[in-house]
Amino acid sequence: MIRHSATLAVNELVRAKQARGERVTHLAFGEAGLPVLPEIAQVLAESTDRNSYGPVAGSAAARQAAANHLTRRGLETTADQIVFGPGSKSMLFAVLAALPGDVILPRPSWVSYAAQAALVGKRVSTIDIPGHAGGVPDPDLLDRHLATAGPGGVLIVTLPDNPTGTLASPQLVKEVCEVANIHDLVIVSDEIYRDLSHTDPVHSPALELPERTVVTSGLSKSTALGGYRIGYVRVPHGPLFTELHAEIIGVASEVWSALPGPMQAVAEYVLNDPPEIRAYIDAARNLHRTLVTAVYNENIAAGASCRAPQGGFYLYPDFSHARSTLGIHTGEGLARHLLDRHGVAVLAGEAFGDDGLRFRVATSLLCGVDTEQRWTAMHSSDPLRLPWIADSLEHIRTAFRSLMG
Amino acid sequence: MIRHSATLAVNELVRAKQARGERVTHLAFGEAGLPVLPEIAQVLAESTDRNSYGPVAGSAAARQAAANHLTRRGLETTADQIVFGPGSKSMLFAVLAALPGDVILPRPSWVSYAAQAALVGKRVSTIDIPGHAGGVPDPDLLDRHLATAGPGGVLIVTLPDNPTGTLASPQLVKEVCEVANIHDLVIVSDEIYRDLSHTDPVHSPALELPERTVVTSGLSKSTALGGYRIGYVRVPHGPLFTELHAEIIGVASEVWSALPGPMQAVAEYVLNDPPEIRAYIDAARNLHRTLVTAVYNENIAAGASCRAPQGGFYLYPDFSHARSTLGIHTGEGLARHLLDRHGVAVLAGEAFGDDGLRFRVATSLLCGVDTEQRWTAMHSSDPLRLPWIADSLEHIRTAFRSLMG
Repeated sequence: MIRHSATLAVNELVRAKQARGERVTHLAFGEAGLPVLPEIAQVLAESTDRNSYGPVAGSAAARQAAANHLTRRGLETTADQIVFGPGSKSMLFAVLAALPGDVILPRPSWVSYAAQAALVGKRVSTIDIPGHAGGVPDPDLLDRHLATAGPGGVLIVTLPDNPTGTLASPQLVKEVCEVANIHDLVIVSDEIYRDLSHTDPVHSPALELPERTVVTSGLSKSTALGGYRIGYVRVPHGPLFTELHAEIIGVASEVWSALPGPMQAVAEYVLNDPPEIRAYIDAARNLHRTLVTAVYNENIAAGASCRAPQGGFYLYPDFSHARSTLGIHTGEGLARHLLDRHGVAVLAGEAFGDDGLRFRVATSLLCGVDTEQRWTAMHSSDPLRLPWIADSLEHIRTAFRSLMG
Repeated sequence: MIRHSATLAVNELVRAKQARGERVTHLAFGEAGLPVLPEIAQVLAESTDRNSYGPVAGSAAARQAAANHLTRRGLETTADQIVFGPGSKSMLFAVLAALPGDVILPRPSWVSYAAQAALVGKRVSTIDIPGHAGGVPDPDLLDRHLATAGPGGVLIVTLPDNPTGTLASPQLVKEVCEVANIHDLVIVSDEIYRDLSHTDPVHSPALELPERTVVTSGLSKSTALGGYRIGYVRVPHGPLFTELHAEIIGVASEVWSALPGPMQAVAEYVLNDPPEIRAYIDAARNLHRTLVTAVYNENIAAGASCRAPQGGFYLYPDFSHARSTLGIHTGEGLARHLLDRHGVAVLAGEAFGDDGLRFRVATSLLCGVDTEQRWTAMHSSDPLRLPWIADSLEHIRTAFRSLMG
């Protein structure tokens, strides 16, 4: 049985509490929390006549824009490699439905990978992440696992990572790809947070294993268009291409047909990377980095063990060492305690396949509660001093510090 | 392996031929072929700020609008029964993934049912339709099948039907539901063509088996918004409700998250049935009826056996009796012959799980090739005399008459 996605479910729970007048600082949901750029709104408003089904893969113009977008980021891509769909989540589903073999996930990893694998009848193995960064499995543990489990299967990686907010280094990516190559894995590289990497460029596994890496991405995070549901996949040229592309098109055509026509116009516009989009993403990245770093500091001050954030708007603090002090023994217990006692919503590590007193913190909804606050935060040179952000940070500080007594 | 949906694939083939300058009269694709009502375009243009993920099921306002819409059509519905998604196709997929048991389909039936069943690992049985109307299996054949196959499973019906363009009568629906009841089937009733029934109101199986009928619908046909991808499901109250609703939400949350926010605004507006929407649908229904009746007459004149159209824009002519005259022995052979020799594209019966020299004719793309022609056709008191329609009909007449020599 496939249950309501944990991250979407907790969002609905928090919204219900807030609607009842309860104060909840919402750190449980990975929505970018920023407004729609007016130029994007205009493109959508001017594309209302696109009511035809159109090609399953998306329009030639939108696919060319995505190909150019990736090529500019160092991944040489042609339009035939791109398939659009309603969110990168849907493309991940199509890829998992299309690829043979079981699924290997880093632990922790994003909530939907395992659920999607279950939905298409695949077995899932999890391999712990290295100490210094998540999003990929520890290469040595992966190698040992595959020595027993046998070759083949699909490894999903996330760069930058959700939930840890870290970015695997080029060296780490290289090591993981070497193991994947030896054991005949296909890599699915979820790069939806690519443009929100704080400082370092993303080193895609597609550079190391070009013929066996599928890349997925979308517009939900860097341009804050989660509610528009725009995603795409880059299918690698090489021996896998023809069959895999046909399978992805097959699944897409039988489950959602195509990305809505007006949204294809938005995708084409955004992925052409015009200056105003680049400026928006720069401002978003800076704001997310400022907020997530501030909350990271609060976690460290409260005694958490936590990897320093490197991309996007997530943290993954660990209070496992304080199990006896806290008298709490699971991540879910800790998340419930934070919500019920302190009005702070986070998503427990269990949602990411993990154990221990760990949880994911998403700082993106701190930007503001309405469009005006959010624009102000994006344009501010010192967003931490904006009253609604300072107030939320104070709430978080109090909650985390009182956690440890 | 799930292949590219036959109906979407033939559309892309025809578009490519047309782009090369070949004349093709396109009767192979079930797109409504009409323009976007300006008021709908305006709603979409004013909803560009809806970039939040929102609830998986859709906004409360959109779900209430759908519930009222169905209630006005005789199906008492509350908002908690409604789940939106990117097209009714996606909702059918979620329902099939959620329901236990094998799938029973009328033969012929829409191309995607069997493909979706395969995608979620279900076995499919097909039962021939009765002589007078399709969309449902012959009740006696269904009863005999279930006596051998055993109880349980999912029966999909289509009212009005794609591909036959007929509407099962209340009596026929009642008989099918009695058999379904005896053998413990769940019925999935695809009612996306409901508002395009030419004269008779649709008698939903949900009226006969209220606790065991799931209804799906969407905005792609009656308001011609195929490219917007807006669909919904009505989950029946009763013993199935809690589990089935949770499963559908689970699948939706893990595959596409939610209907895009701006499209939820469109759904809310359209499903509130304002006067301008009712007028648009009346005009669309009249135009489709006029066109499909004209092409029906051409088929009969050419010697086809064919059920008279009762809803939507489809016909399902049968040339099986002319096998030896034609020297063609499959529906696919006949469709290929029509396309290559006569420049008329239809979709072979095989795509609908059928055999014989049968094919589906979709007349909706005859309305016009651009927005201006399409509006003119919708507002015309005698669309058959518009030059582009008269010309296409002449082409069809010549093709079908020369078919039989």
